[in-house]
Amino acid sequence: MSDEMRVGLIGAGRIGRVHAQTLTRSLPGVTLLGVADVREPAAKSLAEELGVPWWGADYRRLLDDPRIGAVLICSSTDTHAGLIVEAAEAGKHIFCEKPIALDLAQTDRAIAAAGAAGVKLQIGFNRRFDAGFRRVHELVFAGAVGAVHLLHIISRDPEPPPLEYVRVSGGIFLDMTIHDFDMARFLVGSEIEEVMAVGAVLVNPGIGEANDVDTALVTLRFANGALGVIDNSRRAVYGYDQRVEVFGSRGSAQADNSTATSAALLDAGGRHTDKPLYFFLERYAAAYTAELQAFCQALKNDCEPLVAGCDGRAALLAGLAATRSLKEGRPVRLAEVDGEWRRSHSGTGNGARA
Amino acid sequence: MSDEMRVGLIGAGRIGRVHAQTLTRSLPGVTLLGVADVREPAAKSLAEELGVPWWGADYRRLLDDPRIGAVLICSSTDTHAGLIVEAAEAGKHIFCEKPIALDLAQTDRAIAAAGAAGVKLQIGFNRRFDAGFRRVHELVFAGAVGAVHLLHIISRDPEPPPLEYVRVSGGIFLDMTIHDFDMARFLVGSEIEEVMAVGAVLVNPGIGEANDVDTALVTLRFANGALGVIDNSRRAVYGYDQRVEVFGSRGSAQADNSTATSAALLDAGGRHTDKPLYFFLERYAAAYTAELQAFCQALKNDCEPLVAGCDGRAALLAGLAATRSLKEGRPVRLAEVDGEWRRSHSGTGNGARA
Amino acid sequence: MSDEMRVGLIGAGRIGRVHAQTLTRSLPGVTLLGVADVREPAAKSLAEELGVPWWGADYRRLLDDPRIGAVLICSSTDTHAGLIVEAAEAGKHIFCEKPIALDLAQTDRAIAAAGAAGVKLQIGFNRRFDAGFRRVHELVFAGAVGAVHLLHIISRDPEPPPLEYVRVSGGIFLDMTIHDFDMARFLVGSEIEEVMAVGAVLVNPGIGEANDVDTALVTLRFANGALGVIDNSRRAVYGYDQRVEVFGSRGSAQADNSTATSAALLDAGGRHTDKPLYFFLERYAAAYTAELQAFCQALKNDCEPLVAGCDGRAALLAGLAATRSLKEGRPVRLAEVDGEWRRSHSGTGNGARA
Amino acid sequence: MSDEMRVGLIGAGRIGRVHAQTLTRSLPGVTLLGVADVREPAAKSLAEELGVPWWGADYRRLLDDPRIGAVLICSSTDTHAGLIVEAAEAGKHIFCEKPIALDLAQTDRAIAAAGAAGVKLQIGFNRRFDAGFRRVHELVFAGAVGAVHLLHIISRDPEPPPLEYVRVSGGIFLDMTIHDFDMARFLVGSEIEEVMAVGAVLVNPGIGEANDVDTALVTLRFANGALGVIDNSRRAVYGYDQRVEVFGSRGSAQADNSTATSAALLDAGGRHTDKPLYFFLERYAAAYTAELQAFCQALKNDCEPLVAGCDGRAALLAGLAATRSLKEGRPVRLAEVDGEWRRSHSGTGNGARA
Repeated sequence: MSDEMRVGLIGAGRIGRVHAQTLTRSLPGVTLLGVADVREPAAKSLAEELGVPWWGADYRRLLDDPRIGAVLICSSTDTHAGLIVEAAEAGKHIFCEKPIALDLAQTDRAIAAAGAAGVKLQIGFNRRFDAGFRRVHELVFAGAVGAVHLLHIISRDPEPPPLEYVRVSGGIFLDMTIHDFDMARFLVGSEIEEVMAVGAVLVNPGIGEANDVDTALVTLRFANGALGVIDNSRRAVYGYDQRVEVFGSRGSAQADNSTATSAALLDAGGRHTDKPLYFFLERYAAAYTAELQAFCQALKNDCEPLVAGCDGRAALLAGLAATRSLKEGRPVRLAEVDGEWRRSHSGTGNGARA
Repeated sequence: MSDEMRVGLIGAGRIGRVHAQTLTRSLPGVTLLGVADVREPAAKSLAEELGVPWWGADYRRLLDDPRIGAVLICSSTDTHAGLIVEAAEAGKHIFCEKPIALDLAQTDRAIAAAGAAGVKLQIGFNRRFDAGFRRVHELVFAGAVGAVHLLHIISRDPEPPPLEYVRVSGGIFLDMTIHDFDMARFLVGSEIEEVMAVGAVLVNPGIGEANDVDTALVTLRFANGALGVIDNSRRAVYGYDQRVEVFGSRGSAQADNSTATSAALLDAGGRHTDKPLYFFLERYAAAYTAELQAFCQALKNDCEPLVAGCDGRAALLAGLAATRSLKEGRPVRLAEVDGEWRRSHSGTGNGARA
Repeated sequence: MSDEMRVGLIGAGRIGRVHAQTLTRSLPGVTLLGVADVREPAAKSLAEELGVPWWGADYRRLLDDPRIGAVLICSSTDTHAGLIVEAAEAGKHIFCEKPIALDLAQTDRAIAAAGAAGVKLQIGFNRRFDAGFRRVHELVFAGAVGAVHLLHIISRDPEPPPLEYVRVSGGIFLDMTIHDFDMARFLVGSEIEEVMAVGAVLVNPGIGEANDVDTALVTLRFANGALGVIDNSRRAVYGYDQRVEVFGSRGSAQADNSTATSAALLDAGGRHTDKPLYFFLERYAAAYTAELQAFCQALKNDCEPLVAGCDGRAALLAGLAATRSLKEGRPVRLAEVDGEWRRSHSGTGNGARA
Repeated sequence: MSDEMRVGLIGAGRIGRVHAQTLTRSLPGVTLLGVADVREPAAKSLAEELGVPWWGADYRRLLDDPRIGAVLICSSTDTHAGLIVEAAEAGKHIFCEKPIALDLAQTDRAIAAAGAAGVKLQIGFNRRFDAGFRRVHELVFAGAVGAVHLLHIISRDPEPPPLEYVRVSGGIFLDMTIHDFDMARFLVGSEIEEVMAVGAVLVNPGIGEANDVDTALVTLRFANGALGVIDNSRRAVYGYDQRVEVFGSRGSAQADNSTATSAALLDAGGRHTDKPLYFFLERYAAAYTAELQAFCQALKNDCEPLVAGCDGRAALLAGLAATRSLKEGRPVRLAEVDGEWRRSHSGTGNGARA
């Protein structure tokens, strides 16, 4: 009985549905008690499909329910930080999709609230739970590549999001590259100190009109001396291109794309094999399950989540620095961005942190 | 309501558990109403774990339950044929693990019973539902390799079963190769007409003492003129080795092993990648789900299962011919084995078929 | 001066040209002194192209030249054995293309002549010098695969030879598979004891009219207990398909095809890479050089060639047994074929061997 | 007779030897008449080994020889430009190893001299003749990847050169990356407009003491809008790592490393395959031959070499810009470096170009 875990879900969109299915089908001992979504029909449809006893538009009902120990925040990005604060104040453990927020102020407020309430906060950097990337991480940490010298991350989407989304996304570095910044820290095991971003509009002119880019290279310098580069495109016609390489003094660890099958056709035209899986739901299906398993495990064992609030903050900071680098055409140190915020923050609201 | 499907499970062993999990977690609209196993505690434990309302030692309770439309037969091989007959007489659709039986008499009796009762009978040749093999099958049938000339099947287990099992297994060709005979028919799209088997005891002398072999090559001649070979070993130290190749006038279609990840380590010693997945539960996890989905789909749409009773018979016949070929050191035509049975059968029990 | 090696070439056809180029360009310290071919213009053209001082129709001029230490026999198969005898009697070391002859009588006569004269005799089983196959051989002999259990050889030509050639070739097993029989012995390190061949005419009906097959599977049983299979086709539309696998108690060693490049195109249709190199001149270019280097090295160091006359005989014997197996539809032991020859031989010409 | 081509070689070091062997062994119709090297014994030894009629310390003897139509300049970098000028003035066609010089002044002077004399000048960017890279180039130019968006070049040496060499090398971007700048232009088909370099000393502190880096990432912006990145390391423990990827609107073309064999060992520890070939002599053996074939072909057909003087200049300019970018920590436009030179040049030596 004490092992039973009861959770609530806030946000019944695409990723919310994925998590709800995982909770009800693949996590024995976990019960999804309610689904909240401002679009009540979405909540209802998901709840009915999975046999969840409650649904509604008001997430506060979940926060007020004493049976519920944890909530999953899968609503739109602009609501994340506020919901974290409320959930923390209600004493609920929190799994929150990335990013916490698009600015440091809200992010720090949310992290502080979780800390003050003593609840656990895991951020949805699902890629850390991909078996291939995890293997590379393990090889690096086991010393198989020696001291890390160079990192490569290829991260290309099969198609850009709608322009309405692009306009409110915070820009490619906060929306898309933020996953790669987290992956970079995860694989190299060192903080990003400086970024230099170059970008271009090569996929869709509308993205440029929204003051964003759709193609980018971000060079990274890590605290341990390593260098890295992230390659982003909003459109790879062959599918979701997700590859990493960590090169070091003793070798190189690499993870390639996943394909639907290992089948090949060899004919007069050559050898033909599968292209990568289409997009994140296909590629990271197992990773989505694994991240929730890890979250439940962290709660059960009362230990820190593998991807904590500070990881969300670190990736955000890199994204902000990259955004500035692209705008100003120069390398930007993360400490520069962080320092400005801390100084401005200490001038106006220092008391809150005291 | 009419879409709801209610099933019972007979046999709560390893494969029974796999199917029970699939039924309860991955097949919306399907309800597992009961689990029967002669070892009642096994039935109980599985039923409780998955929230199945009934369990017990007596499978007849499932056959008598009018709510149940179909049963899965996952008990020991020697019970399959009898259970098929009983289930058919009870008007239940049937999914039965391979093989139907180790002899043609029981196999034909079971198939005839299902036919007479007008119930559907699907045999558990799960490999047909592996995405890679299915792709090869589709390439062949789409004409991508042209006329089929040669078939290769590599099928090696990571370790032999216990000797007690080997002794009652019917021999490697009925126990292990039977899957490959089915795959051969599935990929080539033509009947096996003749087999020539060679075998050796290279893995475990105890297997030889049980009058079986642990290493074998079976050459096949198909009705359409193609030739093929099946390679079997009871022990590949690197895991479950499951590969196929269909070569024809226009090219070659191949499916390779599955691995846990696509990660690679490149170091001073070379390039190191994953070995194949360990065994059938890992390799064919998705295939087990897909075969039950197909079974449910066949019931829902009232159409023939993709793997019917006659497929089970054809694979058995090849296995019997291979067994004789190995024993007598000569090629054996399947018609020879089948003809003897038909003649003997017509002599003693012809009336039953009239 | 003593290191200088002078050789003569008999036969200026396709393979003769390959060897002549290797001798003049890639083997420092070796001089090609003359080219003989019954078609004198062929000899002349090759000699002029490579700056070889002598050419002519009469190979005896090469055998009579005291400066020449070794000859390469690249003429048509029916002349091999006789030329070996003559060259041996002239005291020349001999490199002879495969096969020595199409029957055991001539083969044994040629081997005996070389032995009696004390000259070295290397047979042109070039594939032993392919880097990939050599690596597999080394892995097997280093114990990396443990005790050998199973061998696979895929050996498919891109297109069949002209029918006129097929008619005098001795059949697929003596013409094409003979290379694979040698490879089998080379990789497994044990003698072939028994073969079982199945064949079909699927590529060109004319081959069937010539009493030959164009598609075949030959099952092998080795003295050490291992089993193996050779897969032959006269036409793979995608090029020369040459792969091997040696499976044993500790693992599996494999060599795949060679391709022109490692380039890949990934597009909306999948991933596209190179097909295998077209045919033996492309695939085995380096192997042809290496086999002559090895021959020269054997002469220089006065040690046995890596591929001796007995290797040629063993492959021939397997080919004869496979021919009989195909004809009679039964497994044939090599000892059966050899014994018949020895008995018939001892009856009629025993004195010659005494 | 008119087809005969006679050449001289200046510089009998490592790469000079490679070219001399190609000239004498693999290029029918080409004769190497003499080898000059300031270290006369090196010239002598090479000439004797290959049967070249003349050797000596004084390259002017080659330039004065009226039979000689072309020279290969394989001496130390600091002599290249001067030798090009002298050879051009002597009316000889020129194949010169990269780089022409370490500064624009000498480079322009050399190119101008060749132009004025009407002799052909090919630069030794051998990698353009690698079969894999050439295939990628062809795929890009055939439109298979559509409009180019992103370029990746991985270019890592197996070990750093001696520190004495590093000190006079001009720095990693002029010594090592210059090949990659050329490859970038070759693959993308557009000029590099801007570079941003980051570097680190992670391999050998002595390289840092020589004011150089051993690990670098150089971001490129092309005239056609594409972005690119070059990854360099002076030491990859697993060998010479040379890979490229061109990503565009319709797909991605990639070329991987070359290995000695395609052999694999699959054992309880995983799947083990070859590491890349050790270094440039192994990886680019065929490319070295192909570049000289192309040079001879250009002379024979009186057409422009595939890699002209302007290609050498463009790569140098990128290297100079990268050097400045690394020093100043900012993106540097190539036009900035070129403009400064042109302005300074027009002030002081304009007359020479008039």
